[in-house]
Amino acid sequence: MTVQKGSLLYEGKAKKIYETDDPNIFLVYYKDSATAFNGEKKAEIVGKGQLNNEISSLLFEKLNEHGIPTHFVQKISSNEQLVKRVTIIPIEVVVRNIVAGSLSKRLGIAEGTEIKKPIIEFYYKNDDLGDPLINSFHIELLELADKEQLDEIKTLAFKVNDILLKHFHERNVRLVDFKLEFGLLNDGTLVVADEISPDTCRLWDKHTNEKLDKDVFRRDIGNLTDAYKEILKRLGGTVPCTE
Amino acid sequence: MTVQKGSLLYEGKAKKIYETDDPNIFLVYYKDSATAFNGEKKAEIVGKGQLNNEISSLLFEKLNEHGIPTHFVQKISSNEQLVKRVTIIPIEVVVRNIVAGSLSKRLGIAEGTEIKKPIIEFYYKNDDLGDPLINSFHIELLELADKEQLDEIKTLAFKVNDILLKHFHERNVRLVDFKLEFGLLNDGTLVVADEISPDTCRLWDKHTNEKLDKDVFRRDIGNLTDAYKEILKRLGGTVPCTE
Repeated sequence: MTVQKGSLLYEGKAKKIYETDDPNIFLVYYKDSATAFNGEKKAEIVGKGQLNNEISSLLFEKLNEHGIPTHFVQKISSNEQLVKRVTIIPIEVVVRNIVAGSLSKRLGIAEGTEIKKPIIEFYYKNDDLGDPLINSFHIELLELADKEQLDEIKTLAFKVNDILLKHFHERNVRLVDFKLEFGLLNDGTLVVADEISPDTCRLWDKHTNEKLDKDVFRRDIGNLTDAYKEILKRLGGTVPCTE
Repeated sequence: MTVQKGSLLYEGKAKKIYETDDPNIFLVYYKDSATAFNGEKKAEIVGKGQLNNEISSLLFEKLNEHGIPTHFVQKISSNEQLVKRVTIIPIEVVVRNIVAGSLSKRLGIAEGTEIKKPIIEFYYKNDDLGDPLINSFHIELLELADKEQLDEIKTLAFKVNDILLKHFHERNVRLVDFKLEFGLLNDGTLVVADEISPDTCRLWDKHTNEKLDKDVFRRDIGNLTDAYKEILKRLGGTVPCTE
């Protein structure tokens, strides 16, 4: 698939979205920026964009293989991938298998506690409000999604969890939690969108519980690119030279 | 119903609970304490306990008349009422008809905005954690209530809202939002418990939107006992002399 890169539509904290000559296709450029705590902590990390583009592409290919509707089309360069044009639903959908991060603080449960049945949380994607936790009534009030869409989002989120949990488990990685975003195609079809990478997942080594995700950056506990390279390696990807 | 007041079982911010000589009946004493912001703001307000005991008794009688299962038995003195012995479910159930307070802040919607369909929110009743907002998955993880109980809680909360909304409306009061707590009787029956008063409801005058609830205290915008006396008067109660 060959497309011409068009004008910049949107620049986020970690990615840029460009139009292409195909009105139904966007081009995503993964930046080398790392941010945390709603943008309060920032850094440029050479190679991060490339690693996330690789990892996210591999994981979306896996979901596509399993018949999950996603926005992903194909990776076209080290930092770029093509995706279907979607309207993003401004809800961050978090799926959790092990207690960590904000859930540990919210409920006063130790990080690392296994969760018997996966948990879903919805956050309102709104930087000004600090991405607050919301419930289905809030979603209805804000008209972010209707009831049918929300039910489908939950069903898809659990399916994605089943697929990724198994996939990472076989690669000696514990999928602690992850964030999904969903979008609507022109015809109203709901698809998994945005990215799936160590920026959006908590990934711990199965045996040592070593953190192999953005917590390395958030908590200053190691080298981010080393952690992301390890994840890419375990997913069978080609680890690029980022020196 | 005559009972002997027994030993103090529990002292909260606004009430004391005593055993009685009937093992299935507790005595509730309404204190004159006002607290807000998780106990950070405090005051003693002469007459407040009496007003809340009166108002809560009238509102629980109204719910009992409508066949809502509640813990309320009867008022026995100015500051005291008898209730059925329950085990409190540590969830604060908030029902909202108009945007105010934390909802306004959470979603960035102006206070006073009408909500088309009432909203329910669950908060984990835990002072150390600051009573955080939680969802049904968190409730399952914490084993606070099972799915059937949670469905029943929602159904009862909406029914209580219908009854109180109409009741206050007829008395020229807008029921903006309110908090309910639920308890389980020995046989597992779910009942509405705790109190329903201007401490736990937002109540605005229908014509002027004057606040007639604890926000008067939280926000230092008037005299709390005057506001609570106005509510008691509109509910048809006898306003006690608190001078």
